[in-house]
Amino acid sequence: MSELAVTARTRHSRLRDQGSVERADLVAILRAGFVCHLGVIIDGYPTVLPTVYGIDADATTLYLHGSVVSRSLLENPETTVCVTVTHIDGLVLARSVFEHGVNYRSAMVFGSPRLLTEPSEKLEGLRRLSEHAAPGQWAYARQPSKKELAKTSILALDLAEASVKIRSGGPDDGDSPDAERGLWAGVIPMRTAWGSPEAAADLPPEIAVPPHITALSRGR
Amino acid sequence: MSELAVTARTRHSRLRDQGSVERADLVAILRAGFVCHLGVIIDGYPTVLPTVYGIDADATTLYLHGSVVSRSLLENPETTVCVTVTHIDGLVLARSVFEHGVNYRSAMVFGSPRLLTEPSEKLEGLRRLSEHAAPGQWAYARQPSKKELAKTSILALDLAEASVKIRSGGPDDGDSPDAERGLWAGVIPMRTAWGSPEAAADLPPEIAVPPHITALSRGR
Repeated sequence: MSELAVTARTRHSRLRDQGSVERADLVAILRAGFVCHLGVIIDGYPTVLPTVYGIDADATTLYLHGSVVSRSLLENPETTVCVTVTHIDGLVLARSVFEHGVNYRSAMVFGSPRLLTEPSEKLEGLRRLSEHAAPGQWAYARQPSKKELAKTSILALDLAEASVKIRSGGPDDGDSPDAERGLWAGVIPMRTAWGSPEAAADLPPEIAVPPHITALSRGR
Repeated sequence: MSELAVTARTRHSRLRDQGSVERADLVAILRAGFVCHLGVIIDGYPTVLPTVYGIDADATTLYLHGSVVSRSLLENPETTVCVTVTHIDGLVLARSVFEHGVNYRSAMVFGSPRLLTEPSEKLEGLRRLSEHAAPGQWAYARQPSKKELAKTSILALDLAEASVKIRSGGPDDGDSPDAERGLWAGVIPMRTAWGSPEAAADLPPEIAVPPHITALSRGR
């Protein structure tokens, strides 16, 4: 895959060794999650809202559930957002506090999203969101009615301007004078995993967990 | 504990049943994580950066590692930030796509942070960050030198203006006509947990994992 273009907003000015310009890294980070943090300026203040997202098959567009933000703001084509997706992989414990760190993978996407208005386009965006979080569920569950679709705000954001940062591995002070201190150093990994599906309390007991849900809770 | 004051920025205008004004909920969400998403306006654009945080014992101040943002921006007392901490607890699968959702706990804190300059105050802020992520590590590892402390930016933000949202439990469409469809509905829980500590590759094998690290990887 190609490299990401570097702009004033995506240039890695700090901890450059953690920066990546590989589009493949961006896509892998986006595929590994389903909740992002959407940053938008509301009444002059930065606001950071968690929301669900999805991407299209060739990873050129990010779809966002926009209902967390007022429609009037989203209708303004000049509204710029920053979408950040972060996975925490571990805590890096070094011999000195200063060298402590976090293993993580983070992607930041900038742009002016488009509020989808055409029903077929909205439906497709919502399908991407749904299939991103729970593949197979779109065909299984009842799809949105016209009325439900009208109540849903879906944003489309080009995956054009993005910044990626990744830190992995152990602490860096193994060859510093601090290594003589005889202190333990290493990583406490952090893992996020699906548990076993839990049926709704009012679900008739004869309804079994469908295979795509079993696969999902095994897979991620 | 007391209730959170409601402001224009923290009023729950949408999905009000998911909003909480309990300070105890805010503190519990902040205590359960150690990485937040810091929203700040840079050159007119919203920017969302992951960074580590900690809180003081009585939960009146949030400390942030501010090195992700330029010092000049942080030195401006009018710089407003939004700090969001989100925990994803599960995916809620309903009978209809429209009723799908996410179980989560999210806290949003607004304010103008103070860039700490006094060395003793900076040291205390850094200790809070360190003890929040890895209790016991501050006393175990080498503490920051004057030079290291000078290179570190620590922000203090009052925990005064905050908004909390929590969604838990199963899907809500068990008593809708969709329940007649015979579809599975429920929750796929998502859990985040520490793994076993992994020693740095260059750590002498005779150095054992200290008890506070063993306790940490068992506890969270």
